[in-house]
Amino acid sequence: MKKNAFYAQSGGVTSVINATAYGVIDEASKSSQIGKIYAGKNGILGALRENLIDTSKESKAFITSLQFRPGGVFGSCRYKLKDFEASKKEYLRLVEVFKAHNIGYFFYNGGNDSADTAYKVSQISKTLGYPLSCIAIPKTVDNDLAITDNCPGFGSVAKYVVTSTIEAALDVESMAETSTKVFILEVMGRHAGWIAASSSIAQESYPQAPDLILLPEVPFKQTQFLRRVKEVVAQKGFCVIVASEGIKNASGNFVSESGLKDAFGHSQLGGVAPYLANLVTSKIKLKNHWAVADYLQRSASHLASETDRKQAIKVGREAVRYAVQGKSSVMPVIKRVQDHPYKWKVEPAPLKQIANVEKTLPKSFITKDGFGITERGKKYFRPLIAGENQSIKQNKFYQQPKSVMVKKKLPAWR
Amino acid sequence: MKKNAFYAQSGGVTSVINATAYGVIDEASKSSQIGKIYAGKNGILGALRENLIDTSKESKAFITSLQFRPGGVFGSCRYKLKDFEASKKEYLRLVEVFKAHNIGYFFYNGGNDSADTAYKVSQISKTLGYPLSCIAIPKTVDNDLAITDNCPGFGSVAKYVVTSTIEAALDVESMAETSTKVFILEVMGRHAGWIAASSSIAQESYPQAPDLILLPEVPFKQTQFLRRVKEVVAQKGFCVIVASEGIKNASGNFVSESGLKDAFGHSQLGGVAPYLANLVTSKIKLKNHWAVADYLQRSASHLASETDRKQAIKVGREAVRYAVQGKSSVMPVIKRVQDHPYKWKVEPAPLKQIANVEKTLPKSFITKDGFGITERGKKYFRPLIAGENQSIKQNKFYQQPKSVMVKKKLPAWR
Repeated sequence: MKKNAFYAQSGGVTSVINATAYGVIDEASKSSQIGKIYAGKNGILGALRENLIDTSKESKAFITSLQFRPGGVFGSCRYKLKDFEASKKEYLRLVEVFKAHNIGYFFYNGGNDSADTAYKVSQISKTLGYPLSCIAIPKTVDNDLAITDNCPGFGSVAKYVVTSTIEAALDVESMAETSTKVFILEVMGRHAGWIAASSSIAQESYPQAPDLILLPEVPFKQTQFLRRVKEVVAQKGFCVIVASEGIKNASGNFVSESGLKDAFGHSQLGGVAPYLANLVTSKIKLKNHWAVADYLQRSASHLASETDRKQAIKVGREAVRYAVQGKSSVMPVIKRVQDHPYKWKVEPAPLKQIANVEKTLPKSFITKDGFGITERGKKYFRPLIAGENQSIKQNKFYQQPKSVMVKKKLPAWR
Repeated sequence: MKKNAFYAQSGGVTSVINATAYGVIDEASKSSQIGKIYAGKNGILGALRENLIDTSKESKAFITSLQFRPGGVFGSCRYKLKDFEASKKEYLRLVEVFKAHNIGYFFYNGGNDSADTAYKVSQISKTLGYPLSCIAIPKTVDNDLAITDNCPGFGSVAKYVVTSTIEAALDVESMAETSTKVFILEVMGRHAGWIAASSSIAQESYPQAPDLILLPEVPFKQTQFLRRVKEVVAQKGFCVIVASEGIKNASGNFVSESGLKDAFGHSQLGGVAPYLANLVTSKIKLKNHWAVADYLQRSASHLASETDRKQAIKVGREAVRYAVQGKSSVMPVIKRVQDHPYKWKVEPAPLKQIANVEKTLPKSFITKDGFGITERGKKYFRPLIAGENQSIKQNKFYQQPKSVMVKKKLPAWR
């Protein structure tokens, strides 16, 4: 007998998370074992609140367009399920909703926390005797998931950062004689420096940048940093810096929380880039500019890596295949078969080994001085940003989903 | 007898200023009246220092590639020539260099200040009896030049801002339920709000954003701003704001200089976006994120407007035609013939009417509440961001110019 499927997006979105949604929906629609595909409105909250979007009511054209749409089309959330004991009511509710809507497949598209959620749901459905195939599907710009060689979402943010670094550096170079000499680009990465490190690939398009990469994995030393900036400017006239938002000082505190106060004495304005810019201005008196890419970097689907987009679709499709094969508590992960020409495949990995594990940049990727990326690192990043899709149109019209909700069968949640 | 030409780039660069360089060099190379085209290394400084790049030594392929290259390939500068009396030595030096290298055509590619420089040079060459055709070629992301309907460089920055606003808004919308509710994008525009205003075109791709546009032309009122943000969030769940870096309070002071101090008591960290974010956090306690696009916006040639790129090439070609026709002290300006379908032409305008005049956003473009753009404004912006060039490759290799310098004939400058 056919069972319905539940799919939800969780945590920070990426420019290709909707490509995964497309992969899941398209693949599931071909399966004789899967009935309807219900998307959770705002992630797991959609299941708890019984807010289920019937994706079969969306047009075929709309589902196809998800391949190129930024954001999380069904809504995402930041919501962490606690342990069974602490959140028993929530787990019971999930099972109740799944029963009411004949849901036998659970697809959860997210990062570390989401893998943990999917793992917990898979365990609990066993404990509570409700049969459910639980598959977590990888997605995170942070690229910090264990086991998988890389995470869908990362290649595109890396391409954004590489492209922006090249373009801004060409700008700075042309003005440096009489104007800006130091440029700082702040990128995401609270605990792992994958995004900042990927900017090293800019050097292959334009050898002049970046000059310094600041990583959370390397303690930030102010004196050493300022000395290097001065040296680079003295040598070639300008200096381009890519800084991870999560850089920490030797005591392990975030540099961006180092005591900035506004006129009212409120601390924290945030921003590693303005912090570093202030250091450069006040300590070595070099004219500088800074940019904070923030959400622009993770939503820039106009600049998506075609490799990334294809992988995002593929993990969605594989997740469905695993589910109908009866697998549970696994994640489709990307395995690199060959660096050049790049070859990859997708295979299942146990969620238990992925949930809550954070993968930081390997030491072998970081140059001895802590400011650069080794050839070994570049070999890793190079293929992930490759490829463009010529059918991506800029400033196209983004249709909203119809979001036809499934009729509720249960009392309201809480 | 053939005369040589001098071309230089001045002021902040754009993602299509090199397209103008291509237009000038390609057109001049076809003229029987023009000999060599010398590019000034770092703008007018190249003339003063006799640092002249012989563009005939660059490969044809390299010159062609300038159509798609960000930054200012020959180097730009911020350097303002004073009046004849105050800077007599400099004007005499310019004439000396032009004489030494048989330069009869002077092309200066820049904004307000550069139009002023070109105007002064044209006057002075009369006074000093040295025949010179002086043509200023428009370029500025600020779009604040008089007479011309729009400025090359602006359409592309507008396209960047529109695209980024759409993409970030789709991201924010999907997370708003449990995470970020307010997003602030800071864009350029110190005295005129053209760039921020252009973001209104995002609404045609995605009606949900931007919600509020903050312009230098409209005094910033904190209470009113915060009330509107609260209202929008209450109504639709999230609020997207595009803010000009140059917004001012009722007393005419820049909002970004409103007394931010770091831990050492140094004031100015800069940034309207972090300033507004801090207000939203402290006064109405809504979770927010902010981005500062800075140089990324004006160097994003991967996202150049095809309309803008074509206009940038065309003004370069026309400048050369005017010069060989014996015109001087003029600028090729863009005249809009029709809104839709968009038609435009280029015609000469007297520099005297352009130099040092700053064109701000017309009142008729701004909605009554001061936070939006009227249909009249949108009609203006719409065609300027249109079009993509499919031959633009991301992360391509940027070759450096050979920069073969012309042999110096004069003693060093200063």
